Amino acid sequence: MPDARFSPLPGFRDFAPQEYALRAYLFSVWRRVAQRYGFAEWEAPTLESTELYLKKSGGELPTQLFRFQDQGERDVTLRPELTASLGRIAAACQREYAKPLKWFEIGSCFRYEKPQKGRLREFVQFNADILGEASEGADAELLALAIDCMREFGFTAQDFVVRVSDREVWLRYAAEHGVPEERVGDFLAVIDKFERDRPEYCQEKLDAFGLRREDLVAFIQNPPAGCSAHFDRVYEELCARGLEDYVQLDLSVVRGLAYYTGLVFEIFDKGHTLRAVAGGGRYDGLVGTLSGGAVDMPATGFAMGDAVIAHLIEACPAARALRDAALRPHSCDVCLVLAAPEMRPQMLALASVLRDAGVRVDLPLAPAKMGNQLKRAEKIGATYAVIIGAEYPEVELKNLATRESAHTTPDGLMTELLGEADEA
Amino acid sequence: MPDARFSPLPGFRDFAPQEYALRAYLFSVWRRVAQRYGFAEWEAPTLESTELYLKKSGGELPTQLFRFQDQGERDVTLRPELTASLGRIAAACQREYAKPLKWFEIGSCFRYEKPQKGRLREFVQFNADILGEASEGADAELLALAIDCMREFGFTAQDFVVRVSDREVWLRYAAEHGVPEERVGDFLAVIDKFERDRPEYCQEKLDAFGLRREDLVAFIQNPPAGCSAHFDRVYEELCARGLEDYVQLDLSVVRGLAYYTGLVFEIFDKGHTLRAVAGGGRYDGLVGTLSGGAVDMPATGFAMGDAVIAHLIEACPAARALRDAALRPHSCDVCLVLAAPEMRPQMLALASVLRDAGVRVDLPLAPAKMGNQLKRAEKIGATYAVIIGAEYPEVELKNLATRESAHTTPDGLMTELLGEADEA
Repeated sequence: MPDARFSPLPGFRDFAPQEYALRAYLFSVWRRVAQRYGFAEWEAPTLESTELYLKKSGGELPTQLFRFQDQGERDVTLRPELTASLGRIAAACQREYAKPLKWFEIGSCFRYEKPQKGRLREFVQFNADILGEASEGADAELLALAIDCMREFGFTAQDFVVRVSDREVWLRYAAEHGVPEERVGDFLAVIDKFERDRPEYCQEKLDAFGLRREDLVAFIQNPPAGCSAHFDRVYEELCARGLEDYVQLDLSVVRGLAYYTGLVFEIFDKGHTLRAVAGGGRYDGLVGTLSGGAVDMPATGFAMGDAVIAHLIEACPAARALRDAALRPHSCDVCLVLAAPEMRPQMLALASVLRDAGVRVDLPLAPAKMGNQLKRAEKIGATYAVIIGAEYPEVELKNLATRESAHTTPDGLMTELLGEADEA
Repeated sequence: MPDARFSPLPGFRDFAPQEYALRAYLFSVWRRVAQRYGFAEWEAPTLESTELYLKKSGGELPTQLFRFQDQGERDVTLRPELTASLGRIAAACQREYAKPLKWFEIGSCFRYEKPQKGRLREFVQFNADILGEASEGADAELLALAIDCMREFGFTAQDFVVRVSDREVWLRYAAEHGVPEERVGDFLAVIDKFERDRPEYCQEKLDAFGLRREDLVAFIQNPPAGCSAHFDRVYEELCARGLEDYVQLDLSVVRGLAYYTGLVFEIFDKGHTLRAVAGGGRYDGLVGTLSGGAVDMPATGFAMGDAVIAHLIEACPAARALRDAALRPHSCDVCLVLAAPEMRPQMLALASVLRDAGVRVDLPLAPAKMGNQLKRAEKIGATYAVIIGAEYPEVELKNLATRESAHTTPDGLMTELLGEADEA
C-alpha cells in the first residue's frame, strides 16, 4: 500500500508503474479498435477559454469546473469534456481533411465533484466522433465502434447493453401532447430523471404539462413500431454487421445535455449496478453554434471513461483474465547479470548491441551479488537472464520461466533473442 | 492553414490529426528507447498542491505558474515539471518496487511564459529518472538513454553534443578560493550565467567574491585532469558502450535549480542555435526533502521537451527523413468502395470480419459516387481499395500505390491482407 502521507490531491490519482500498466492497457484497447475503424487520433489543449464552454452550453455553465483567472487575467477552465474543443478545432481546420472526419482522442478531463467510486476529479476519457455525415450510417459506425471496444475488453452481450434512444421521438410526443415549444427542454429533463425520481415526485412535475406518468411508462415500455426511423435504420446496419444482440431501443435515455439533437445512447452493465460506461449521441447543431455559424457540420460522438470500465472489468472474469494477461510485469526481455566484475566493459558493450537491435535490456548499475542480481531479474519480470563471467565471450542464457539454461556467445544470443523480439 | 478565429489560448496548441502524427512520432521514439533500457512508464496527476513545489524549491516558487484556488479553497498548481511529483510518488510506494527504480513519463507541463519559438504554455516533456542508486553507473545509464533517444531520431555526433559538468568541482573551487559557504549558491548563479552575461557585468558580480573572470575562463577551458572523478567514471562507462563521441566535460553548465547535487548535463545542437534540447542531473537530496526525511533515495534524471526537438528535427535532413516516413497518412489498410448500393449489408458484414481480424478498415457511411469514394481512399492514405459490386462475393482488390488490381473473394482477401497486417 502506498504511504498515505504522500498522497495526491483528493480525487486525483498517481500512476506508479503498476497502476500505469492498467491505464496503458485501457489506452491500447481503445486505440487499437479505433484504428481498426479508420479513426485518426487528435488532442486538445488541457486548458481552454471559459467562453468556449459558455458558447457550447448556451450560457448555462456546469458548476463543477476547475475555473480560474490566469496571470494574464483570462477566464480559463481545465477541460471538463472534449466536445467543445473538438467543435472548435474541427471548425478551424476541417477544410484540410476528407469528409467525414472520423476522429478519436484519449486524455484527461477535470470536474470538481465529490470523489467516490467511479467519480474522480481528474479522469480519462476515450472520445470518438464522426463529423460531416448526417446519415444513420455514421451513427451505426459509431455504435459498432463502441460495441467492439467492449468486446475487445472481453465483454459479451451477457455483460452489457447499449440503450439507444431518439430525442426526435420525444419532440414529436411533446408536440402531439400540447407541450409548449419553450418548455420542451423542461419536459426532456423530466424524462431524463424518469427512472431515478420517486413516482409521486415525477407525477408532480408532469402535472405542469398535463401528462400522466402511467401513459409515459406505457409509451417507454412499448414504443409504437416505427416510432423512430433513425433507430430502425441504425438497427438494420448493426444487423448486417452482426452486432444486433448488443442494442435495444430504450426511450428512457435522453442524456442530460441540451445540445443533443437525434439518436442518443448509453452503455450499461447488464445488472445496471454502475453509472453508464459510455454515452453519446448526435449533436448536429454544435459545430455551427461554436463557430458562430461559420462552419456547419452534422456530428455524432461518444465518450467512455476509464473509472467505470475498470470496475466493470474487475467484475467480469473473462475481461479480468484479458486484463491480467496484459498487466504481467515484463519491463524487459533480458536482464544482464555480471558474475565477474572485470567484465563490466564487455557487459556494457553487449547491452548496447542488444539495445540497438531493439531488445529491452536491464543491467546492474553498480557491483552487486549474483543472487541479488537474479532476484531483480525475476522481480522486474525479465524473460531471460544472461550471465556474464570470466569465460566471456561465452555467456549463460537462462530462461527465467522454464529455468532452462544454455551456454552461448553474443552472436548466438542475438539470433536467439531477435527471433523472440520479432514475434513479440 | 487553420482558421484563426477558432484558435486555442496563446501558448497552447491544437493537435488535429496532422499535428497529432508528429506528437505520436516523438512519443513512440521516446517510449521505444526507454523500454529498451528497461524503464517502466508512470504518470502523475496534472494538478498538485502548490505546497509540493514550495517544498521542492525550498520556499522560492517560480513566478511563472498556473496557480489558483480550487472550489475547496486549496492552493493548487498545474504541474510545471514532473520531478516534484516523482519524488512524492516514489516516496509513497518505493517499497513495492525492485531498486533501483528506472521510471519514465511522457506528459504535459504548464508554465505561464511569453509564447515564442520553443517556448509554450503547455508543452510535453519526456522524463527519465533512476532512483535508489548513487553510483555513476546510474548517471551513465541515463546519459546513454538520452544519447540513444537522439540517435533514434536520426541525429549523429555531428548534430548534437552532451555537455556534462559536475557541481562538486565548483563547490571545491569555491571552498579553495575563499567563497563563504552561505554564498556558494550565488557563486553558482554567476557560473550559470557565465556564457550569457556581458564580460564586464560578469566581472562586476565576481568582484564580490574577489575572483577574476579570466581565471574562471581558463579553468573552464582547460579543466585540470582528474578534477571530476564522477565525470571520469561516467566517461569510462560511455566508452565501453561506444558512446564517448557524444559527450564532453563542460564546466560552464551548472543548471539553474538549487536541488542538483553532482553531475549535471545539457544537450545542445552543435551550432548551439537553440535552447537546450534536454537537461538533467543528480538530485540526491530531493526525495528526502519532499518526504520530510522519511525516505532517502539518491536520484538522477533528465527531461527532454517536445518543442526544441521538433525544431531540431526540422533542421536536420536525416532526422527529417525519418520523421516524414513516420508521418505519412496511413489511417487505414483498406477502404471499402461500394459500387452496387444493394450490396451494403454484404459490405458491412465484410467490414466486421476484416476489423475483427485486426485490419484497419474505412467504409462509405452514406451513398456516394464511386469516384468520390476512391478519392477519399487516396486522401486518408489507405493501402488498398476493395470494390464491392453486384458480382459479390467476387470483389476487386486495388493497390492504391502500385495501381495493380486483382479479382478475389472475401476469403482470398483475408489471406492477402492478414499476411500484410502481420508484417506491419
